[in-house]
Amino acid sequence: MCGIVGYIGKRPAIPVLLDGLKKLEYRGYDSAGVAVLEQDAITTCKAVGKLAVLEDKLGTDFSQTCIGIGHTRWATHGRPSDLNAHPHLDTEAKFAVVHNGIIENYIELKEWLVEQGHTFVSETDTEVLPHLVEYFYKEDLVTTVREVLNKLKGSFAILVMSRQDPDILVAARKDSPMVVGLGEEEFFVASDIPAILNYTRKTYIIEDGEMVILTKDGVEVTDFEGKEKEKQLYEVKWDAVAAEKAGYDHFMLKEIYEQPRALRDTLISRLEDDRVVLNEVDLTAEQLRSFRKIFIVACGTAWHAGLVGKTLIERWVRLPVEVDIASEFRYRAPLVDEHTLVVVISQSGETADTLAALREAKRNGARIVAITNVVGSSVAREAHDVIYTWAGPEIAVASTKAYTTQLEGMALLGLYLAQTRGTLATEKIREVIAALRRLPAQAQEVLDESEHIKDLAQSFVEIEDAFFIGRGLDWNVAMEGALKLKEISYIHAEAYAAGELKHGTLALITDKTPVIALATQIDVYEKTLSNIIEVRARDARVIGITFKGNKDLDKLVDRVIYLPETIAELAPILTVIPMQLLAYYVSVARGCDVDKPRNLAKSVTVE
Amino acid sequence: MCGIVGYIGKRPAIPVLLDGLKKLEYRGYDSAGVAVLEQDAITTCKAVGKLAVLEDKLGTDFSQTCIGIGHTRWATHGRPSDLNAHPHLDTEAKFAVVHNGIIENYIELKEWLVEQGHTFVSETDTEVLPHLVEYFYKEDLVTTVREVLNKLKGSFAILVMSRQDPDILVAARKDSPMVVGLGEEEFFVASDIPAILNYTRKTYIIEDGEMVILTKDGVEVTDFEGKEKEKQLYEVKWDAVAAEKAGYDHFMLKEIYEQPRALRDTLISRLEDDRVVLNEVDLTAEQLRSFRKIFIVACGTAWHAGLVGKTLIERWVRLPVEVDIASEFRYRAPLVDEHTLVVVISQSGETADTLAALREAKRNGARIVAITNVVGSSVAREAHDVIYTWAGPEIAVASTKAYTTQLEGMALLGLYLAQTRGTLATEKIREVIAALRRLPAQAQEVLDESEHIKDLAQSFVEIEDAFFIGRGLDWNVAMEGALKLKEISYIHAEAYAAGELKHGTLALITDKTPVIALATQIDVYEKTLSNIIEVRARDARVIGITFKGNKDLDKLVDRVIYLPETIAELAPILTVIPMQLLAYYVSVARGCDVDKPRNLAKSVTVE
Repeated sequence: MCGIVGYIGKRPAIPVLLDGLKKLEYRGYDSAGVAVLEQDAITTCKAVGKLAVLEDKLGTDFSQTCIGIGHTRWATHGRPSDLNAHPHLDTEAKFAVVHNGIIENYIELKEWLVEQGHTFVSETDTEVLPHLVEYFYKEDLVTTVREVLNKLKGSFAILVMSRQDPDILVAARKDSPMVVGLGEEEFFVASDIPAILNYTRKTYIIEDGEMVILTKDGVEVTDFEGKEKEKQLYEVKWDAVAAEKAGYDHFMLKEIYEQPRALRDTLISRLEDDRVVLNEVDLTAEQLRSFRKIFIVACGTAWHAGLVGKTLIERWVRLPVEVDIASEFRYRAPLVDEHTLVVVISQSGETADTLAALREAKRNGARIVAITNVVGSSVAREAHDVIYTWAGPEIAVASTKAYTTQLEGMALLGLYLAQTRGTLATEKIREVIAALRRLPAQAQEVLDESEHIKDLAQSFVEIEDAFFIGRGLDWNVAMEGALKLKEISYIHAEAYAAGELKHGTLALITDKTPVIALATQIDVYEKTLSNIIEVRARDARVIGITFKGNKDLDKLVDRVIYLPETIAELAPILTVIPMQLLAYYVSVARGCDVDKPRNLAKSVTVE
Repeated sequence: MCGIVGYIGKRPAIPVLLDGLKKLEYRGYDSAGVAVLEQDAITTCKAVGKLAVLEDKLGTDFSQTCIGIGHTRWATHGRPSDLNAHPHLDTEAKFAVVHNGIIENYIELKEWLVEQGHTFVSETDTEVLPHLVEYFYKEDLVTTVREVLNKLKGSFAILVMSRQDPDILVAARKDSPMVVGLGEEEFFVASDIPAILNYTRKTYIIEDGEMVILTKDGVEVTDFEGKEKEKQLYEVKWDAVAAEKAGYDHFMLKEIYEQPRALRDTLISRLEDDRVVLNEVDLTAEQLRSFRKIFIVACGTAWHAGLVGKTLIERWVRLPVEVDIASEFRYRAPLVDEHTLVVVISQSGETADTLAALREAKRNGARIVAITNVVGSSVAREAHDVIYTWAGPEIAVASTKAYTTQLEGMALLGLYLAQTRGTLATEKIREVIAALRRLPAQAQEVLDESEHIKDLAQSFVEIEDAFFIGRGLDWNVAMEGALKLKEISYIHAEAYAAGELKHGTLALITDKTPVIALATQIDVYEKTLSNIIEVRARDARVIGITFKGNKDLDKLVDRVIYLPETIAELAPILTVIPMQLLAYYVSVARGCDVDKPRNLAKSVTVE
C-alpha cells in the first residue's frame, strides 16, 4: 500500500522524487522518505506524517545529485515512525532500498542475518533487503539483487541504489505494481503512472517476475534469471490535470460531482438502440449460455457493488450468483469450475486480495470478467475480459464515482447475459435501457437539489453512532452509505437489513443514534415503514430516502430526501449520492481529513 | 412480540393473569396490563415498565372476579406508554381486547371508524379491534368477532372479553402463537405454554385460522367460518422448574453453563458408532442425493449458525449453500425449486420472518428441514422434517445454548448428507464424530477456566465500540460474538472479515476500540496474524482467541484466551463460549439488564 519512485538522469533528483511521491500519496501517507547518492555516500531524509513534513525537513538547500529513490509509506509491519520510514539501509549505508509489499519470510531472514552480525534499526520487513544485498554483494549490484530476489517470499516492488554502483538503479516486481518512464536521457520508475506524468508519457508496464536496470543511457528489462525481455511501449493518453481537484475543496467532492459525466461515459459506447453491446467481452453466445453459476468477488466498496449485482443478475438472468469478499474467497475452496463465471471488481485493478482470488478462480477453470477503472492494471491484464468503468482517476480514498459506475457495469453485464440467454422480455430490456439512459441527468438532478444535505450534516457533528437500514437493494446500498460515513468521519455507522434489526441491534437504538432509512423498493415499502416505526418508537431521529411520489414516509420520519424516480433495480445508483454527500459534509464539519482518512490507503495492494 | 393470557374459571383471575404474564415477559416487556369483568363493567389496570410496576399498581386489594385477560407488550406501533398498553377498549368500555401481532390495514380501518364517530386514545394498531367489535356487535360476541376477523389483514393472536357476554372469552389466531390450557372447571389461553404450566399440563395447540370460545364449562374450537374443529390433547411433559434460574444470577449465565449438557443431549441419540443417525429426518437416500442446492434461512443468532453451516456443508458435501436472512429471503424471489433443500433455523420456532420464508420455500416445491428448540412450534409443525436442538427452554433474550446446539445440528446434518452422498472419506467422518463426542467435555473445560474473563470484562466498562475479527469460520463466529456484546451491553460491537478491515473500517480503530481477534483456523493463521499487526499498529488493544499450542499469537496481542483443540470445523462451538461470557460480564459490570435488554424480545413473532 506504499508508493515508490526512482529517478536517474540529468536534473536534481530530489524535486522529481518529491513531485512523484505527491502523486502517489493516495497509496499511503503515514511517513515518507528519500535517498540520494552523493559522490561516495548515500544521504537519506525521512519524516513521519504527510509529505509536507518531509519537504520542510529537506528545505531548499538540498543535494543537487541526479540519482535517487523515494517512498511514501502506509504502515503494515511496525508503526509509523522516522525509523520505520523508507528508504532502508544496510549496516554501512552502502545500499538503500525502498519497497512496496510484504516480505513474508522476513522473520526467518532477519534472525539469520542477526546471527551473521547484522544490526537492525527498524521494525519493518523491508530492512532485511539492504542487509541481504550487503551480505551477498560480490561484484555488482545487478547479480546481487538477482540472488537476493530468489530468497524472498511475499510480494514486492523494490528499488535498490548502491554506493559501489553509482550510475545504476535496480528495480524488481512481484505482485506489486510498477511502471517505468522513458524520458530524454532521464528515466523514472514508480508504483503508478501519475508519479511520472509531469515528465514523460512514454512508459513500460512492468510485469511480475521482471527486473529493471536503469542507467542514464537507458533501461533494460530482464526476468529474475537475467534473460532479457522485450517490452512494448505504452503511451499514456490521459491528462494529468484530470486528476487534480478542479476547484473543489476536496477530491471526494469533485468526484461526487463528476458522477453524471462518469455515468454517461461508462454507458455511452455500450448501448445501441435497445441492445447492450459489450465489444470488449470476448465470449461467444454459446459460452454465455454455458454458465451455471456466477461468483462476484471484490473488497470494500466494490464488494458492495457486487451485492447489488447479485440481485440484478438473479432477477434478470435467473442464474445463481454468490458474492464473496475476496480475502475470504481465496481460502475457502469455493465450488468453482469451467461452468462458472467469476466477476472481479476493483477500482484500482491492483487490490491484492481480489487479484489473488482472480488467480485462484482461473486455476480452477473459471472464466473471469473484470470490472475495473484502471487500464492496464494487473486485474485488467489477468482477466479474460474487462468491462472498464470510465470514471477517470479516483484520488479520494473514499470511493464514489467508481462505485456508481461499477453498478452500471453490473447492470450492463446483467442485461447482456439476459439478452443473450433470452431470459428477459424485449420490453423489459427496453425499459431498463431507457432507465439507464436517464440516469446521468437524474444524478445531476440529485446533485442540484443537494444543498440541504450540508445543513443536515451539521446535526451529525456530535454523534458517534449511526444506522442505515433498508430491505433488498436498499439494504445493499445502505452498506455503502454506512461505509462512506464510517471511513471519512470516524462515526461508527452500520447498515442493517431493516427486518433484521429487531434480532439484536435494536438494543443500540436511542435518541443519540440517527437512522438513515432507505425506502425506494416498492415491493417491500410497507414492510420498511413498519421497521421505521420500530426505530421511531425508540426515539431515533430518522432520515428517509425515497422516490418522489412515494407516500406516507414524511409522516413517519424527521426528514425525507426525495429522488427522481427510476426502476427498482437502478435505484442504488441514485440513492447512494445523498449518502455520499452526507458523509462528505459530516467529515468536513467534524474537521476530518476528507480525502485521506486516518489508517486507510486508496489502493490496498497488500493482503 | 407481545404476550397474551386469558382466564375463565373458579378462582380470582388477576393472580392467574399476573403469574402467566410473568412467564411470558420474555416475549416483550415495555408495558403490561390486565382487564377483568366485574358485574356489569370492565376494569382495566395498565402500567408502563416491567411487570412489577403493574403488580404494585394493582396492590393487594384487587378484584376477585374470575374472568379476565392480560397482556405484556413490546412496542411496535406507538411508543411504550400507559395509553398504548393493552387491553384496549371501545368507546363505551363494553369490550376489551388484547392482541399480539400487527394489523396491517389498521390505518384504513381507523380512518373509517373515525368517520363513523369513534374516538381513539392510543397510537396502536390494536385499538381498532374493540371499536370494530363495538361497531359490528348485534347479537353475541362469537358471531361479531367472526365478522371482524374477516376484515383484518396482518398477523394476530387476539383475546376478546365482553360486558354483554359475561361468561365467555373469545380468542383467535393467525400467524401468532396461541395455546389453550384445560383445567378442572377452569380454562386458560396464552401465547405460550409456560404461562399456564402452574395450573395444568393439558393443552390444545391452536393453529392458524382457528377461533376458541372459552366458558366455565369448556372450550370450543372452530375455524373462522364457525365450523367446529376437533383438537388433539397435547400433554406437556417438561418441567416448569427447568425454566428457572437454578441459582445463577441471570438466566443467561445459567444457560451458558448449561451448554455442556445441551451439547451432549443434542448429540446423544444421533451418533451410533461412526455414523450419524437422524431418525427424525424422513428422507430417502435417493431424495438426499437429489438436492442440487441448499438454502439456510434464519434471523439473528440462528442466521449466524447458518453461516457456519454453509462452510461445513460446502466443505463436506461439495454442494452449493446460500445463507439468507429470513426477512430478505421472503421478498427476493430466490431460485428455489424441488431440487432445493431449505434449512430453517429458529430457537423458538415462532420467528415470524423465518416462518414466512419456510412457507414461501414450500410453495416453490422445496423440501424443508427445520432446526428448532421448541417441540410443536409453528416452524416444527410446518417443516417436512425437524432436527430438534435439545437445549431446553431458553429464557434470556441473548441466545447462547440455542446457538451452540444449532451449530451441532448443522454439523449433524452436514455429516448426514456427506455420509449418504458419499462425499467424505470414512476416516474423515470418523474424525469429525470423534471430535463431536469430545465437545461437551471441552465446553466444560472452557467454562472451568473462564474465571479471568470476569476481570477482562472490567476493562470494557468504559468503552463504546469494539471490533471482532477473524477469517473463514472465525469470521462467522465473530459475528455472533459481536452480537452478544451489542445486545446486552449496548456497546457498538461489529464483526469483520479480518482481511476486509483495511477497506474502510480500519479508520475507526484507535486505542479506544478493543479488538477481539479469533485465530483458530490454521489454514489462514498467518494471514490473520498479519491483520492483527495492522490493528496493533493503530494502538488497538487486542484480545486473541486460539487453540492451545498455536504459537506466536501471545507475542502480538495483549491477552490470549486458549481453547482445547478441536477440528477447524467445530471450532466455533468452543470459540463462542468465552465471547458469551465476556458479553455477560461486561453487561453486568455496566449495570445493564442482562436477561432483558432494552428494546428486544426473546421471540420475534412480528416482521
